[in-house]
Amino acid sequence: MPPTSETLTAERILEATEEVLRRHGPAKATVVDVARALGVSHGSVYRHFRTKAALREAVTKRWLDRTSQRLAGIVDAADRTPEQRLRDWLSTLFAAKRHKAGDDPELFATYTVLTDELGGVVHEHLADLTGQLTRIIAAGTASGAFHTPDPSATARAVFHATGRFHDPCHAREWTSPGIDAEFEAVVELLVRGLSREPGR
Amino acid sequence: MPPTSETLTAERILEATEEVLRRHGPAKATVVDVARALGVSHGSVYRHFRTKAALREAVTKRWLDRTSQRLAGIVDAADRTPEQRLRDWLSTLFAAKRHKAGDDPELFATYTVLTDELGGVVHEHLADLTGQLTRIIAAGTASGAFHTPDPSATARAVFHATGRFHDPCHAREWTSPGIDAEFEAVVELLVRGLSREPGR
Repeated sequence: MPPTSETLTAERILEATEEVLRRHGPAKATVVDVARALGVSHGSVYRHFRTKAALREAVTKRWLDRTSQRLAGIVDAADRTPEQRLRDWLSTLFAAKRHKAGDDPELFATYTVLTDELGGVVHEHLADLTGQLTRIIAAGTASGAFHTPDPSATARAVFHATGRFHDPCHAREWTSPGIDAEFEAVVELLVRGLSREPGR
Repeated sequence: MPPTSETLTAERILEATEEVLRRHGPAKATVVDVARALGVSHGSVYRHFRTKAALREAVTKRWLDRTSQRLAGIVDAADRTPEQRLRDWLSTLFAAKRHKAGDDPELFATYTVLTDELGGVVHEHLADLTGQLTRIIAAGTASGAFHTPDPSATARAVFHATGRFHDPCHAREWTSPGIDAEFEAVVELLVRGLSREPGR
């Protein structure tokens, strides 16, 4: 039964869009493709998304937000020290990316193409993630565990230094046998760098 | 004037191979293409390289070796402290990669395709580079500047943590305006991590 105009929510359209992407790859997922998959007129989809670009941006943002939302809970976990939050945040990010890449490689490849095209959406996502990291590092600076005059710049440095473990261009390396030990070694070095008072 | 069999060295063949790659991309550069470019029989090229695979491996190794050779001089620079050698080594690596990518983008793209195919050659190159880094970090450990129980594992961690600044999959980011400050921030954090005694 096709959805009525009341039940046709933006979320339902985005679910269908992801299904179209999964089956047909990044070239597809126009408003017309998605309307056809839902069995509704394209006018009803246009009421939620005015253009193909808006639809693709929204579905990509939803995909990226799934990762940020998983991480957001760690940022303010008052039962863990800032150092533990930092370690958990980085390993949860790595685990989330590996799952996305490993569980559904075609969809992951499709979204990698889309994120390559959608600089603005990715920029916001990265700002969101480094904003979360900044809060963890600022909490560590406040508690005396970390030492940095600029938590925001340091958060970006930590994010860049761990790129091998979250940037999609490294996805092929995520299944290599030594990758977990390599991840731990990088995190260890970064935590030591954060914990050291400058000039000491 | 075509080279005679005496003057047709492996190096001359590899120069011609690189020129063929530059002009025609990674699909070309067979023994026959290269022989034609040199104006010699393919038999004379086969005397140096028995297969297309051997030729492609040799030219790719030569391209990668240009970087390692530039770096090798820094490893034992007795006039610099290990920390300075580490900083110089990392910034020279980044500069070398940026030059390769920026000065001749087509050739860089071609070699990126070749390195994707030639896992063994790349593996050796990375082992060479992390071997150089290991020697710098071991020297720092010996002098008391760095603290690590395993210079080799730590060298790999430093190499991985700086991947954004040498892995070809990040080449597009190397021209972004903040990239130098980002590089410095990562190096600073890593040097601080190396300099801190564990457990302090």
